[in-house]
Amino acid sequence: MTRRLEQQIAFLNEADKLKSINRATTLCDGTRAENSAEHSWHLTLYALVLADQAGPDVDITRVIKMLIVHDLVEIDAGDNPIYGTFDQSAVDKQEQAAADRIFGLLPNDLGDDLRAVWEEFEANTTPSARFAKSLDRFQPPIQNLMSNGGSWVEYNVTEDQIARQVGSKIAAGAPGLWAFARTRIAAWFAARNQG
Amino acid sequence: MTRRLEQQIAFLNEADKLKSINRATTLCDGTRAENSAEHSWHLTLYALVLADQAGPDVDITRVIKMLIVHDLVEIDAGDNPIYGTFDQSAVDKQEQAAADRIFGLLPNDLGDDLRAVWEEFEANTTPSARFAKSLDRFQPPIQNLMSNGGSWVEYNVTEDQIARQVGSKIAAGAPGLWAFARTRIAAWFAARNQG
Repeated sequence: MTRRLEQQIAFLNEADKLKSINRATTLCDGTRAENSAEHSWHLTLYALVLADQAGPDVDITRVIKMLIVHDLVEIDAGDNPIYGTFDQSAVDKQEQAAADRIFGLLPNDLGDDLRAVWEEFEANTTPSARFAKSLDRFQPPIQNLMSNGGSWVEYNVTEDQIARQVGSKIAAGAPGLWAFARTRIAAWFAARNQG
Repeated sequence: MTRRLEQQIAFLNEADKLKSINRATTLCDGTRAENSAEHSWHLTLYALVLADQAGPDVDITRVIKMLIVHDLVEIDAGDNPIYGTFDQSAVDKQEQAAADRIFGLLPNDLGDDLRAVWEEFEANTTPSARFAKSLDRFQPPIQNLMSNGGSWVEYNVTEDQIARQVGSKIAAGAPGLWAFARTRIAAWFAARNQG
């Protein structure tokens, strides 16, 4: 039992490194980059608060589990900003290797369980995964609207790009959230183009 | 429906401020103070990974909900380091006022629900609340052991103080975790006293 607990604690200490992985998105006040650990916490709160935007087949408890573990692989693979340029198949390989190592720190039963939660999120095919992914795509534009453009400005993103690269994924799991974000994004770009 | 969603998003944007509330504990690598948002995320992962340390009456889904919202009041009331000196009744008043304001941003049904989750955590009487509180008390010593003493050094804390102020709370909800931590804390203090 002590050996098991030592493995569990070793995993939790390794997970601490997610607090040092920075994302392209800033805090709402724009003062600094958001890290992937606090982002993951924020998304679990999004899931609790926006559960009424989920379809009837979504299991919110499962969604929250996915959001807790969804970015752990970034400890090895880093965060890939959605508007950056990267080789998706290379990223996938890095993330699979990261999942092998990181979930492999756990006792087998626990490691297999959390790996399956992460794989479900990544595959993005179940209703719960699609809702979790929608929240993961919905939060950055909400933060950007608060921080006067945030990563849109940094990456010189167009309104059309947002609709294609982010809007489609939000709409797939939470159409009401995309309807909400889209009008506000349009207003932000309209104001900017006038300014 | 739009008004409801606007309230939900206003609450989520307000919650972003928890990422700027620093705690006495540092990251495992000691490079900076941990903030309360990433701490909250880490605790939800502790709950997933250490669920086998919970008693039979503990509802892990409820534990995770408590851990997601447990520190939100710090946005107004700040974090009170466990080894610092403060007036507990004044803190309780500040935190109640903070809960009124912050959960009050939500539509009533949602605000009442999350407020009840937070009150359950604070009251620390149900098996789920006691387990959640144990994790909240267990994580800082685990981080301190990684960061060469962390807040114990800063606050000049004794082994006996840890047992009284932290150990008793960990043991109340997760005796196996306190047994694990106690021996490692004893070894750390023994090595330090020799050094």
